[in-house]
Amino acid sequence: MTGSYSRLFEPIDLGPVTVPNRLFQPPHGNAYGLGERQTDFRAEKAKGGFGLIVQEYSQIHDSTDVTPVDSGYLHDDETIEPQRRMVDAVHDHGSKLFVELWHGGATAGNYGTRQPPLSSSQNPTGRNYTPKEMEYEDIQTVLDAFGDAADRACRAGYDGIELHAAHGYLISQFLSPFSNDRDDEYGGSLENRMRFFEEAIDRVRAAVSDAMTVGARYTIDERVEGGLTADGDGIEIMRRIGDDLDFWDVDVGIKQSIDEMIAPSRRRSKNYQLEYVKDATRELDVPVGGTGRITDPDDAVTLLEEGYVDLIGMARQSISDPHWPRKVREGNPERIRECIGCNVCVSQSRQGIPLTCTQNPTVGYEGAWPPESYETAADPKGVLVVGGGPAGMEFARVMGERGHLVHLKEKADRLGGRIRFEAGLPDLGEWNRVRDWRVSELERLDTVEIHTGPRAEMTYEDVKTYGAEIVAIATGATWAETGVTSGTHQPVPGWDQDHVLTPEAAVGADLSGQDIVIFDEEGYNVSAGVAQSLAADNRVTFVTPKSNAFQETLHTFEQRTIFSTLYDLGVEFVDHHSLDAVRETEVVASNVHSGERSRYDADYVVFTTMRESNDDLYRSLTADADSLRESTEIDAIHGIGDCISPRRIADAVYSGHELARRL
Amino acid sequence: MTGSYSRLFEPIDLGPVTVPNRLFQPPHGNAYGLGERQTDFRAEKAKGGFGLIVQEYSQIHDSTDVTPVDSGYLHDDETIEPQRRMVDAVHDHGSKLFVELWHGGATAGNYGTRQPPLSSSQNPTGRNYTPKEMEYEDIQTVLDAFGDAADRACRAGYDGIELHAAHGYLISQFLSPFSNDRDDEYGGSLENRMRFFEEAIDRVRAAVSDAMTVGARYTIDERVEGGLTADGDGIEIMRRIGDDLDFWDVDVGIKQSIDEMIAPSRRRSKNYQLEYVKDATRELDVPVGGTGRITDPDDAVTLLEEGYVDLIGMARQSISDPHWPRKVREGNPERIRECIGCNVCVSQSRQGIPLTCTQNPTVGYEGAWPPESYETAADPKGVLVVGGGPAGMEFARVMGERGHLVHLKEKADRLGGRIRFEAGLPDLGEWNRVRDWRVSELERLDTVEIHTGPRAEMTYEDVKTYGAEIVAIATGATWAETGVTSGTHQPVPGWDQDHVLTPEAAVGADLSGQDIVIFDEEGYNVSAGVAQSLAADNRVTFVTPKSNAFQETLHTFEQRTIFSTLYDLGVEFVDHHSLDAVRETEVVASNVHSGERSRYDADYVVFTTMRESNDDLYRSLTADADSLRESTEIDAIHGIGDCISPRRIADAVYSGHELARRL
Repeated sequence: MTGSYSRLFEPIDLGPVTVPNRLFQPPHGNAYGLGERQTDFRAEKAKGGFGLIVQEYSQIHDSTDVTPVDSGYLHDDETIEPQRRMVDAVHDHGSKLFVELWHGGATAGNYGTRQPPLSSSQNPTGRNYTPKEMEYEDIQTVLDAFGDAADRACRAGYDGIELHAAHGYLISQFLSPFSNDRDDEYGGSLENRMRFFEEAIDRVRAAVSDAMTVGARYTIDERVEGGLTADGDGIEIMRRIGDDLDFWDVDVGIKQSIDEMIAPSRRRSKNYQLEYVKDATRELDVPVGGTGRITDPDDAVTLLEEGYVDLIGMARQSISDPHWPRKVREGNPERIRECIGCNVCVSQSRQGIPLTCTQNPTVGYEGAWPPESYETAADPKGVLVVGGGPAGMEFARVMGERGHLVHLKEKADRLGGRIRFEAGLPDLGEWNRVRDWRVSELERLDTVEIHTGPRAEMTYEDVKTYGAEIVAIATGATWAETGVTSGTHQPVPGWDQDHVLTPEAAVGADLSGQDIVIFDEEGYNVSAGVAQSLAADNRVTFVTPKSNAFQETLHTFEQRTIFSTLYDLGVEFVDHHSLDAVRETEVVASNVHSGERSRYDADYVVFTTMRESNDDLYRSLTADADSLRESTEIDAIHGIGDCISPRRIADAVYSGHELARRL
Repeated sequence: MTGSYSRLFEPIDLGPVTVPNRLFQPPHGNAYGLGERQTDFRAEKAKGGFGLIVQEYSQIHDSTDVTPVDSGYLHDDETIEPQRRMVDAVHDHGSKLFVELWHGGATAGNYGTRQPPLSSSQNPTGRNYTPKEMEYEDIQTVLDAFGDAADRACRAGYDGIELHAAHGYLISQFLSPFSNDRDDEYGGSLENRMRFFEEAIDRVRAAVSDAMTVGARYTIDERVEGGLTADGDGIEIMRRIGDDLDFWDVDVGIKQSIDEMIAPSRRRSKNYQLEYVKDATRELDVPVGGTGRITDPDDAVTLLEEGYVDLIGMARQSISDPHWPRKVREGNPERIRECIGCNVCVSQSRQGIPLTCTQNPTVGYEGAWPPESYETAADPKGVLVVGGGPAGMEFARVMGERGHLVHLKEKADRLGGRIRFEAGLPDLGEWNRVRDWRVSELERLDTVEIHTGPRAEMTYEDVKTYGAEIVAIATGATWAETGVTSGTHQPVPGWDQDHVLTPEAAVGADLSGQDIVIFDEEGYNVSAGVAQSLAADNRVTFVTPKSNAFQETLHTFEQRTIFSTLYDLGVEFVDHHSLDAVRETEVVASNVHSGERSRYDADYVVFTTMRESNDDLYRSLTADADSLRESTEIDAIHGIGDCISPRRIADAVYSGHELARRL
């Protein structure tokens, strides 16, 4: 271990439990439910060296149900056994496993159990229900559920508990004046607002053994008008709780400010939450952990040394690379696969889709695909990879790790594929890590040769005569030039004019003072980036047939930042409109509902409606697959990534990885 | 059986299988997965007299995965056993059970299996992927999967199969020029576009026994520009297939026109699809079934007699009342609980939430709560119900069915609660069925007394001295007057002025020529109805902090109709804006992202941001619950419906039903 990082690997006592180092995974959901997949996922982080893992938000009662999301559970005794296996698996690697006891209060719609949602008060939810203002008996029922769930956690063998007193969930709904309007002993004064939390702590303490840590996930600053603040009640609550808790796992933001809590890289730079946490850490005797896009080991050391936190929390980074601690400990911090802050992870799990990751394609498949371990090929083959984007790089990398002899061909001057353009768009610089980490890993492998530049372009004849046994085509995709949309499946009349530009051409054209119409169905990073890029010096009108722009960014928590930026730049939004025609200096749009027509000035038009596969090479090869197999060394031709189905970067990386594991 | 309905109960041969009557449930999803809940749900319809039930869309392969929705499955052998139990349960009631073999093609995002989505061609999806244009090998793989799934269906004991050749799913993507751009033998001419379907039929025929029906779900008119039409290729495809199929289950609409396929009552009146189907029925020798908001038995007879269809399909109606056939057969058609066409059912299941129904609270709970069978109370009680809305009516009804002695008190002149206002809004007349059916059932019960009008209003003292043993408070909810939203939890400054109106007051005020601002977070039927009602004679500006209006209606397929209507009426939409203040003749709004302020003329302002419980009576009673139990006959005081947690009508009905079953 490099001496300078030794601070990260000092043990720390959280009440009765000694955690072997300062690196922990704060609780985060994955929609894996309980079972082998969940066990493998958490155990991998222990194997990778995290000293403490906190299993995700676990429902303690039928009145906190997030159907259709398959979360954690502790609401009945049947939930114990699968969690006992997870505890054992984490313990096998010498790490500790806590669990988070969760009641969502007003945020839990209970669409499965159909119980009334509960809260401290009847505040609006912006959804199709208003919660019940809890009666005294409801409070007792939920407090009992905290105790019962803690008892189950104890019987499952967990080392500790975090009460979920954060993020605007039920305990927060009592603590915070933003949500608590009660006039009984559970509302009003700080003392009264704290009562529910303190009673929940008491129930948990009474239910568990003295050998268990009892801590809390806690939002010290809610980042909303009228909510808790780090220099007000936020820290005062911690002072008053004192040593009734053994550990605080602290962050910022609630549901209304979720882009501050799980900030995408587009919104916040690294370590952004710790400023809110440091005063509490320095003042309190009880250990404090913090999180918020900490990815760099040097930063982690500094944050510990300067007393910002006592433990370094990594949720998204531990997804992106569960072996972060091991790599640091073994003196290879440069091999860390850093999180890009794209929030694809949470965008999936909050919709009930099992968590995935752009950087780490093995997430959720740790049993079959141990992230840092590759089966050596019994019979190494010659492998030709055409295309050095996310899919091609990942395929080449894993094939190289397996001992195959790989040539990776990229006709551009450098590797990266779509990343080269997309990570160059405003506020997406960290997305370059998808490329940079793979380039660095590829360069380390002496089984892989990289060829870039025009001479690395491959034709059908080139592939045929190359001598490779395995051919993977990863030539990516191109933005459709026709403006075709899902509603019409037809080109926009007038699409084939010179002032209709691809996203790349538009950004590269250095335009200023122009009227530009962007016609979009992507609603994600490219249309947002192109709009932001162009709006700095032009008048941009953003037209979409959808009911609103940037729908894909709702779940990645980028929407507020994107809208705020684009409104500030003067972008005009036209929702619910399709394009009927592109004319010389305008476009004709019509309302998809009423048919009413409008015209918008347009010196230039950019379409971001669809990406099409660059599959000419792939199709020409597979059309001749049989004869190629007979007449050349080629055994198999594979298409991977966007070249066969343009999807998210995460899907391209997965596609390359999956094929390399399978062959 | 009433003679006039005998036509409905004639058997019919679908190929080798004789269906005992003309009433069938076309396949529809419910997100119950496979297991007891699914079995009970389908078996209840058999018990209720449907001669044929078609189990929902069942995934035949890992390339058609709709995670997070738990649909039907036939992709591996483990799916067989639970379906065998379902087949047996349906057979126990003398009905037939088919299953629908489904490949979603471009519509299946495969977020669970992570396989590339497949389609005939690379058309845009408006989502975060473009499908793979299927290669020859992909086609063979999926055709094999059709055969394998059919084999499993055969082994599970199903009586027949419907190939899913409808709704813009994979087979449709080959059949329809809207989606098929191929230039090989699977695209171009009609003959070529039909090839995939015909080969799938062949694989299925080859896999199953001759005793099984092989039919198809089929969209005869896609209701999109460039798609199949009923008088073009739509019927021609049926002609060419001829007797290669034993049965056609026909409807209209694809994903792009889903509000034509599963039309809410707001969009289409009853029986609206059959006009598209009748020519095929009359021309073809093979039996044809049809569907589309058929709820009335007299209509059903007419549709059969006039040859519109050979079988009457009811999906939503069979959810609303699984005992429709039995009630008709037994001569009680007036007891049918008619579907209101609100589409809450599909709005849930398509999001992965187990299907629910506004009219039928027992849906999904048939095992515990047989829909038409109630446990007689061993010890009948005196029951007082205060409030005659959906929760109060349903509670009184079920308590009456159980033999309790019920007094139902409603201070208005007639029963209905919120229904009285909401079903009176434009285009929602069928929602009155929630009220009307319950009134008619209550009047039939001699255990229930209904008291309406001002003298039926109940105070604390009235309840206390009433003499009832069980008290249920169902006093509903009221629209908040303050304009409070989920983002701020604060009243809008200026809310307490005379020109700020409740929805009811605004609609009742007979306004004309006014500038009216509606400030909304509901995004559902009330704000849509108020806007539509007011916009006829006024200038309406619809302001919402959300990224678009009417989000709740996206999943009920009402969005297009609402927008189309309101745009035609000249309503102006201001998304992403909160209200900073209501002034005398204007409102001040600000962009929730950029903070930029705007002003809108407002002679009147209507808030539809939140409903608050009318819980004064309930709270005053429960505050004294112990002393009331000691000093009066009262054993228990219950709050039900919106009175404790304002939710959807479906939730209120459920709340009343659940309590009545539980007591």
